[in-house]
Amino acid sequence: MKMLKDKIAAEGIVLSDEILKVDSFLNHQIDPVLMYQIGKEFAKRFQEEPITKIVTIESSGIAPAVMAGLVLGVPVIFARKRQSLTLNENLLTATVYSFTKHTESTIAISGSYLNQEDHVLIIDDFLANGEAANGLAGIINQSEASLAGIGIVIEKSFQQGRKKLEEQGIKVESLARVNSLTNGIVDFLN
Amino acid sequence: MKMLKDKIAAEGIVLSDEILKVDSFLNHQIDPVLMYQIGKEFAKRFQEEPITKIVTIESSGIAPAVMAGLVLGVPVIFARKRQSLTLNENLLTATVYSFTKHTESTIAISGSYLNQEDHVLIIDDFLANGEAANGLAGIINQSEASLAGIGIVIEKSFQQGRKKLEEQGIKVESLARVNSLTNGIVDFLN
Repeated sequence: MKMLKDKIAAEGIVLSDEILKVDSFLNHQIDPVLMYQIGKEFAKRFQEEPITKIVTIESSGIAPAVMAGLVLGVPVIFARKRQSLTLNENLLTATVYSFTKHTESTIAISGSYLNQEDHVLIIDDFLANGEAANGLAGIINQSEASLAGIGIVIEKSFQQGRKKLEEQGIKVESLARVNSLTNGIVDFLN
Repeated sequence: MKMLKDKIAAEGIVLSDEILKVDSFLNHQIDPVLMYQIGKEFAKRFQEEPITKIVTIESSGIAPAVMAGLVLGVPVIFARKRQSLTLNENLLTATVYSFTKHTESTIAISGSYLNQEDHVLIIDDFLANGEAANGLAGIINQSEASLAGIGIVIEKSFQQGRKKLEEQGIKVESLARVNSLTNGIVDFLN
């Protein structure tokens, strides 16, 4: 997706060989017009799937997910990483390890909003080692809904996430694929 | 806003005299079409203000804020409640006390995305005692940007938030004002 790659090239900051900072349009400040275009692109890439729900994870997945939800006309559920006052029954959970933060956390979704009639598109901001996506896919599986695939805004293609997901037969669509961040330069795969 | 009040009446669950659960369309599952209408309504209510940025707080403020940002064509910044890997310089912070959780937390925004030319609309999902909104207003003040006002999806009018904000001369626009939650019933003010 050219508009996205141009934005990454112009505003992305390479913090290390593994970390790309895109706080100016995705992870802290959000560009809603770009997010809407991203939502349209996800809708296009999964247009053959009869999607009934989108599932994402707080906080940076919410903006691209709600825009895809607006285009597709389907509800969006965001998994919580923290305890919520009201999210307290019928929970489906998964444990997610963060390789960059070296911490383990539990993500949770209420099973009340997913059932076996649902066909779910997972959307997230980044795909690295696939821990979050894998956790979400596990939750969809627990709910007995079916999985249409996973839509990712920025994929770090030099890490193992896509490989792990594809080995499970999951379709992965990434709008920007980063081949490497070596020497402070964002090198795209496609 | 009738569409919102109808949704609250149909799907809101009164957990106590102080807590309204709207996890089916705002705080866990999100209705993107309703959020877009909410975004349009915020744009209308602040149409005389030359807004350049929207500021909200993760996670439930993000969906209504990005939709308002899409309608107004301005960027959205979400304050973080947790530490972020990339959000680490030039931070503006505020301490926010939660009356329902009895916890204190620090919220943070990067000063890199706000300056004295900015005219900011704050958007949040709930207004209760005004702690989060007050913290955000304090951060806007630190940044030297000006404040257009505060847009709230659901106001608990039986709590002190609006009063505290208005005493500081801040304009508050709430799309649904809840007069009370007594006896398990959502009673609207207007």
